[in-house]
Amino acid sequence: MGQFGGIESGGTKFICTIGSGPDQISAEERIPTTTPDETIRKVIHFFEPYAAANDLTAVGIASFGPLDLDHNSDTYGFITSTPKSGWQNTDLCGLIRRGLNVPVALDTDVNAAAYGEYYWHKEKRFLDPLLYMTVGTGIGVGVILNGKPLHGLIHPEAGHISLPHNWQQDPFPGVCPYHHDCLEGLASGYAMSERWGQKPETLPDDHPAWILEAEYISLGLLNLFYAFSPTQIVMGGGVLQHPGLIQSVRTKFKEINNQYVRSSMLLEKIDEYIHLPILGNRSGVLGAMAMAIKCVEPG
Amino acid sequence: MGQFGGIESGGTKFICTIGSGPDQISAEERIPTTTPDETIRKVIHFFEPYAAANDLTAVGIASFGPLDLDHNSDTYGFITSTPKSGWQNTDLCGLIRRGLNVPVALDTDVNAAAYGEYYWHKEKRFLDPLLYMTVGTGIGVGVILNGKPLHGLIHPEAGHISLPHNWQQDPFPGVCPYHHDCLEGLASGYAMSERWGQKPETLPDDHPAWILEAEYISLGLLNLFYAFSPTQIVMGGGVLQHPGLIQSVRTKFKEINNQYVRSSMLLEKIDEYIHLPILGNRSGVLGAMAMAIKCVEPG
Repeated sequence: MGQFGGIESGGTKFICTIGSGPDQISAEERIPTTTPDETIRKVIHFFEPYAAANDLTAVGIASFGPLDLDHNSDTYGFITSTPKSGWQNTDLCGLIRRGLNVPVALDTDVNAAAYGEYYWHKEKRFLDPLLYMTVGTGIGVGVILNGKPLHGLIHPEAGHISLPHNWQQDPFPGVCPYHHDCLEGLASGYAMSERWGQKPETLPDDHPAWILEAEYISLGLLNLFYAFSPTQIVMGGGVLQHPGLIQSVRTKFKEINNQYVRSSMLLEKIDEYIHLPILGNRSGVLGAMAMAIKCVEPG
Repeated sequence: MGQFGGIESGGTKFICTIGSGPDQISAEERIPTTTPDETIRKVIHFFEPYAAANDLTAVGIASFGPLDLDHNSDTYGFITSTPKSGWQNTDLCGLIRRGLNVPVALDTDVNAAAYGEYYWHKEKRFLDPLLYMTVGTGIGVGVILNGKPLHGLIHPEAGHISLPHNWQQDPFPGVCPYHHDCLEGLASGYAMSERWGQKPETLPDDHPAWILEAEYISLGLLNLFYAFSPTQIVMGGGVLQHPGLIQSVRTKFKEINNQYVRSSMLLEKIDEYIHLPILGNRSGVLGAMAMAIKCVEPG
């Protein structure tokens, strides 16, 4: 049994890693996202020596999207209608599979991150359904259900759920080109930058931005809690790194739930229940590696 | 192999049925919901002749809740903290299992209705994830994922998701004792009665109530669509019986999505995609029967 590749394919860089687990990484490289041709050629070049030595069993890819994940589709494994220039209709999965001649698993970056948090956690059985929300430039949601990332008609797009807009304290109309003031439109890092005229990481701790941010994130999170009834909620992404934000989200989440759902996870153990990723900012790439491992397992 | 029992346990009546499918019903009875003792005694009495003749293989129950559905819990199968007087902490599942000495499957009324729509549909493989929403006195949501009703920390409570309250046209504060203006608080049949001072079934077709109702239901539905990416959406419950309402919901749903998700199911086939129950108002009791069949299947 050889090693496994994980690729986190993002708008600015592709992170490529090879190994067999979070603590067994043989090599890793960051490749800038330029054209599909150049970028994918460099990705293949990174893995090629391992493939040639029969030391690469499979590769998993955690990618930006939208992706075609329908195995019955002619364009399965493609990046489809992305705004990322030059990357529309790119056969990401096929190019890498043919380049390396190994099985390739593909999922959205958020589903892969959710899977990483699920797969590499020691007590897997307590973690399903697992909900993963990332608040960075955008907002994305991944869900693990019955041990697998949730797909469906397409895949979850829960960054775009609507919620009560606090017009009284927040006249900002939102930045989503489709829905204006959906969750991503109001609470993404990009929305924060546009609303306050400065990047979230430069806003001081006592800025009212953070109270509003906690309100919107917890409203979105509670909607997803009522939808999925998850056993764990993992909060990733750069905005959540702000000191104290996750604590404010927990407090506000309990306040809005108003004891409607009375689980001890909410009432007594909310710090365990809503938590930062155990893999830090490596949930995506290590989730991709886990997908590679899983895709060659029997059954 | 004997027949299967289905029970829909509601706040006003218990519907008991025995048979082997929607078109093979041997007998059916409606038992008024009085005390747990009396009601459950009559339920057992209905099924007893079949059980005595070895013609009852298993029973499924679709019940009002909240329910304890955790198989590891000491109170598995109990109705727990219901506002229904006298029914708190009732061992619904255990009393019926011991009374009839057959396996008993239990789920929420909405999960059971979702399962009925899934199980008795001819082309099952296209129907997962299936989302079922009922708009009656309250609003409930059931979800089938990977062939099974979704549970989790508890079970979905997606009638209580929040959404933008149209304060300009709707100063009504909402009726939910926990969240005021959540989906159920704004759009349930009870909310409609309280807002307009008359029951929804008495409101004329051209009353503004119906435009507002379509707006709130489609906002809630789109949130759940973004969360689950279902392959089918089934809309049950009395309020949805209002002529034209489901059509308004479809139109508004597409309008709010604003071509963000571009699936042909939305763009071209929304009448197939969002539809009334194939089992009419019998999704719950026939879902309960399907649960009974499933619970004795090997594997």
